[in-house]
Amino acid sequence: MRDYKIVLSYDGTDYSGWQRQPKRRTIQGALEGVLARITQRDVSVVGAGRTDAGVHALGQAAHFKAAVRMTESEFRKALNALLPDDIRVVDLHQVAAEFHARRDAKSKTYQYRIWNAPEISPFLFRYALHVPFPLSLGPMRLAARLFEREDDFMAFSSNRELHPRRRVTRSELRRRGNEIIYTIEASGFLRYMVRTIVGTLLEVGRGRLAPIDIGELFKNRTRTLASPTAPAKGLCLLKIVY
Amino acid sequence: MRDYKIVLSYDGTDYSGWQRQPKRRTIQGALEGVLARITQRDVSVVGAGRTDAGVHALGQAAHFKAAVRMTESEFRKALNALLPDDIRVVDLHQVAAEFHARRDAKSKTYQYRIWNAPEISPFLFRYALHVPFPLSLGPMRLAARLFEREDDFMAFSSNRELHPRRRVTRSELRRRGNEIIYTIEASGFLRYMVRTIVGTLLEVGRGRLAPIDIGELFKNRTRTLASPTAPAKGLCLLKIVY
Repeated sequence: MRDYKIVLSYDGTDYSGWQRQPKRRTIQGALEGVLARITQRDVSVVGAGRTDAGVHALGQAAHFKAAVRMTESEFRKALNALLPDDIRVVDLHQVAAEFHARRDAKSKTYQYRIWNAPEISPFLFRYALHVPFPLSLGPMRLAARLFEREDDFMAFSSNRELHPRRRVTRSELRRRGNEIIYTIEASGFLRYMVRTIVGTLLEVGRGRLAPIDIGELFKNRTRTLASPTAPAKGLCLLKIVY
Repeated sequence: MRDYKIVLSYDGTDYSGWQRQPKRRTIQGALEGVLARITQRDVSVVGAGRTDAGVHALGQAAHFKAAVRMTESEFRKALNALLPDDIRVVDLHQVAAEFHARRDAKSKTYQYRIWNAPEISPFLFRYALHVPFPLSLGPMRLAARLFEREDDFMAFSSNRELHPRRRVTRSELRRRGNEIIYTIEASGFLRYMVRTIVGTLLEVGRGRLAPIDIGELFKNRTRTLASPTAPAKGLCLLKIVY
């Protein structure tokens, strides 16, 4: 048996998220299915984190054990030959048995894409949130910076969390033509955290919330004051640093 | 009744092409269905040309007659509100009753995208042909130029055509990183013409055919000497000039 680290890109549109579920099409399920066909054994894959239904990835990471008589390059090609086109192995190599995709992750970076124009292209609607009304970018940019902190992020999660403290090292918004791109990097994320922060930034962009209100949300720690969770399709797991 | 010209973008992935067909999802069918709901009458749409199953469009054009009490802008918004997300109206305006989307078209421009690298992204595979082996771009570029001519294009169609003469005013290939983009503009196209030309250019890129052989193909007028039709998904109808 050898230990492998795998890096995956996927279009999450047609999947019920990362995590294996009975009778549902999931990324983990598809990968484990192909691994079972190649290795003739059940293989259990441990992801760096779960992505929700509809969320995309450029660089999701995972680890697993397998016994194959293939080089890393051959193994990767075999996997890509059997995986559906909307899931690609972009990196695969052997690691020490101690490597753990979730526990060893130093940081994760997510990107959220907003298309801010009256109409959205038929080639983009699966990958960006369409916001047809004007947004005030200045306040949004300012507000985004306020999430760069180590704090209790309970107000920005949908779950009750026992350990809601997280350290966000990068939280920034930039515009590129009609597109607004939000990038956030942290040691870890609470459930729905990125999408709830984006929902909050959109409230700021619409003038319903001021950047100064963000501090209040952190203090109150209650979800109800925060904003609706932005839809999954705009979200993409960019990379995981080990 | 008023006469309208409409310009559409669509992701052809999930459609059986432009033309209305019983029990099939088609672009024309979807558009006529929505027009019937908005105008409460059957509306017949005449496209500038048919795109095959899986072919995309940035600027397909069509005309139709309808009686609506809406401005052009309102009508366009109503259509986009009811159309599926993978079909968008990008332009709509009234025209003279004489306007005919097919007969009045002066030229059409198609683009074909080839992704020439060992692996293709899960976000690109629906919009480009994946060619994992190396291609000789020089000869392909040269060969592409040889299609810029007024000639009998019978060797590059899958149908027997009564009038196989066409005038191609632009036929060029360029590379942008791993992507090879072929652009062709002509007064009109035979069935499968662009995809057969691209198939031929790929044979040139693989060294199975030399640019000098293209002249022979035109002379012989037989399909068998030419190359396999390239898959639909790489093809996009860019624009129609009136």
